[in-house]
Amino acid sequence: MIVSRIEARPDEDTVAAGPLVGRLLDGLPPEAVLTDPDVTASYAHDMASFCPAGAPAVVVLPRTVEQVQHVMRTATALRVPVVPQGARTGLSGAANATDGCIVLSLTRMDAILEINPVDRVAVVEPGVVNAALSRAAGEHGLSYPPDPSSWETCTIGGNIGTASGGLCCVKYGVTAEYVLGLDVVLADGRLMSTGRRTAKGVAGYDLTRLFVGSEGSLGIVVRAILALRPRPPRQLVLAAEFASGAAACDAVCRIMAGGHVPSLLELMDRTTVRAVNDMARMGLPESTEALLLAAFDTTDPAADLAALGALCEAAGATGVVPAEDAAESELLLQARRLSLVALEAVKGTTMIDDVCVPRSRLGELLDGVERIAEKYRLTIGVVAHAGDGNTHPTVCFDARDPEESRRARDSFDEIMALGLELGGTITGEHGVGVLKKEWLAREIGPVGMEMQRAVKQAFDPLNLLNPGKLF
Amino acid sequence: MIVSRIEARPDEDTVAAGPLVGRLLDGLPPEAVLTDPDVTASYAHDMASFCPAGAPAVVVLPRTVEQVQHVMRTATALRVPVVPQGARTGLSGAANATDGCIVLSLTRMDAILEINPVDRVAVVEPGVVNAALSRAAGEHGLSYPPDPSSWETCTIGGNIGTASGGLCCVKYGVTAEYVLGLDVVLADGRLMSTGRRTAKGVAGYDLTRLFVGSEGSLGIVVRAILALRPRPPRQLVLAAEFASGAAACDAVCRIMAGGHVPSLLELMDRTTVRAVNDMARMGLPESTEALLLAAFDTTDPAADLAALGALCEAAGATGVVPAEDAAESELLLQARRLSLVALEAVKGTTMIDDVCVPRSRLGELLDGVERIAEKYRLTIGVVAHAGDGNTHPTVCFDARDPEESRRARDSFDEIMALGLELGGTITGEHGVGVLKKEWLAREIGPVGMEMQRAVKQAFDPLNLLNPGKLF
Repeated sequence: MIVSRIEARPDEDTVAAGPLVGRLLDGLPPEAVLTDPDVTASYAHDMASFCPAGAPAVVVLPRTVEQVQHVMRTATALRVPVVPQGARTGLSGAANATDGCIVLSLTRMDAILEINPVDRVAVVEPGVVNAALSRAAGEHGLSYPPDPSSWETCTIGGNIGTASGGLCCVKYGVTAEYVLGLDVVLADGRLMSTGRRTAKGVAGYDLTRLFVGSEGSLGIVVRAILALRPRPPRQLVLAAEFASGAAACDAVCRIMAGGHVPSLLELMDRTTVRAVNDMARMGLPESTEALLLAAFDTTDPAADLAALGALCEAAGATGVVPAEDAAESELLLQARRLSLVALEAVKGTTMIDDVCVPRSRLGELLDGVERIAEKYRLTIGVVAHAGDGNTHPTVCFDARDPEESRRARDSFDEIMALGLELGGTITGEHGVGVLKKEWLAREIGPVGMEMQRAVKQAFDPLNLLNPGKLF
Repeated sequence: MIVSRIEARPDEDTVAAGPLVGRLLDGLPPEAVLTDPDVTASYAHDMASFCPAGAPAVVVLPRTVEQVQHVMRTATALRVPVVPQGARTGLSGAANATDGCIVLSLTRMDAILEINPVDRVAVVEPGVVNAALSRAAGEHGLSYPPDPSSWETCTIGGNIGTASGGLCCVKYGVTAEYVLGLDVVLADGRLMSTGRRTAKGVAGYDLTRLFVGSEGSLGIVVRAILALRPRPPRQLVLAAEFASGAAACDAVCRIMAGGHVPSLLELMDRTTVRAVNDMARMGLPESTEALLLAAFDTTDPAADLAALGALCEAAGATGVVPAEDAAESELLLQARRLSLVALEAVKGTTMIDDVCVPRSRLGELLDGVERIAEKYRLTIGVVAHAGDGNTHPTVCFDARDPEESRRARDSFDEIMALGLELGGTITGEHGVGVLKKEWLAREIGPVGMEMQRAVKQAFDPLNLLNPGKLF
């Protein structure tokens, strides 16, 4: 509402604008340049807790590559930092504004330029919503697998910036594995193409993958060539109940060591199960300590689920319930997808960890999180992409209580420390952003940090691209 | 033989050595430092034609990370270039020595340090032979898919250096997709770890993938964490004959657009088929213009092959012959694997192109290669990983004939130009090395080249690591 009001009177806005806005308007239409502080403030942050956000000087909404180039040339000329944004569904503050920055929102560059079933590629602009691409691919019998929880709203550009994962990763991998080539506007406004639209290619350094997960700190992705896959059969889901987290993790290990390739292998702990029931009356089994959801999208998913169910029983499952059909499967997935929202309802606020450990250490991580929850007298629900060892221990707290907030933050950090101890990473799929930048050096060490910084320096010598993130 | 003789009298060798060798011997045992020119000359080049190679000052064969660090510290102190090598099976001259360099052969660092079936990872030293890892993984019910033609001799370190492909890529992708983490010795001797051993991870820039395919120009890989997959069922192969290359390419397009996921989809043209028959009396159908080999490693490969065979017939296949069993399948694969050797026998020497195009343009590439062969009056056999659009047009020529050699080189280049015209890349899986370095800029443009050089500069400011390759 506010946005359209503002757009209707651009001249009035630009009156208040300094030389930055004037320069931006030289290459952007007035409706693409927002300066009303009430409006720009709504672009200040993504969905992460505890991450500082500044006040943008201006928000720009380009529609073309040339307009993005103009923004970056202007930013370089005036030495103004630029914070690129997609749908701001990120969970690490990577899209948070800094004071006086240009917020560069790519959401209006939302065209699907091509879908080619023979080459199995899509060519898209960065503002395309993940679900829009998935549906468009589906119409050609294809799929774009990466499916972050926010897939109905998040953008491909944002997915590329954070190398997003999702529920499908145990079989289909993360966003990085689907990015073949990129057009990138560099800090100084020059346009660079990386990669290819062919199935293979090794000409030069793999700059494409360097950009994936770089959180907007190396350049602005303005076009992406993405790999698609044939659309698999609809998956069938099974739920297995366990009397302990350890038994559920043992089942995960047996399933993966047994050579199975499920299309989904998720874990919800008791806290999460109860939170979901409280919110949505899903009728999940509350007596269980850990619920495992597994699925296959093979030609005979029922047979594959039967074999997997037997492994769950061997690991001590107290109940194994395969879905009868697609509708039952969808209900179970809905329960899983509600988890984070349901945990948020417990105390009003959550901090969502994103620790990924070798899956052989998953049980130790769950044990440790339980100890940490006791130590800090907090409710911490665990949802996990168990097949990947990627857990989201979710700290529930009342943000109005400073003491509890402090405990929440401390427990969040202690979980990351535990993840590193177990040979894992501080972030499986959410990224570093602002939230974990003090932790990056602990994970990758001083030599690694130095080389990371050298790469940043090579692409962005003036440190204008999303400064203060990652490092 | 010569090597072991040399190793038996290290003192004698080192007598002839300058300060470089003396410094190297401070941190390496005598048997790891080779200086006899007859011996070092045998390390001068890989398997590429037309690539200059210099005379190494010394060849070192370290066994430990510390020894590699010592080599790099010495090289940096004395400003001596270092050329890293695996088994020297490469096809672009990327492992060729330069005059006065240290050849750093990683072949003695050949331990498989760990195979973990739950985490589905292998941890290996760079000198491990691809086939050795494949077999070791197989003992755990796992597979390491990347299978370059040289898999019985090439090393994992070399595979990482060139981001090698192989026959399996149409379903399983290339080496890059299996490298999770690396330990790398930097130019100045410092040790850096990149990546992870978890299934997912997005902490910081993806330096792991930057190293994959960097042809030894950014650092020395001394340890790799590799992803493994469950071992698939044995594949069953089908051969389909076509009256034209165009019809075979049409079949490839129908197969891929039809949502099939074959484990192999290879093409041999008539020239290649005849060369293989001439060499090995395989009894391949000589009347065919193009032979397509397809395979599935699914639970019901015969059914999948039947569906694929029907698509081949719809595209005009003149004969479709599924293998009856594993033995027949293996024979067909042997014919395919013999292709390059058989083409070499035609005129004594070959230049193997590695052009990859969008698979929808495969037919145009084949047509173009035929025109180029006529224009230059040469035999050019085409073998292709057709499912990936990755072709190996193989120029057959007599290297003793300078005029024919010149025509061979020109036709080789013209094929790369054609590949670029069709939206493809100059190299799908062999790398740039020395052979195609003039072509890299044509593919990626001036801005891309500048950023490639900036990355090189960030990691290797003294330009000591494999100088003269890639750029």
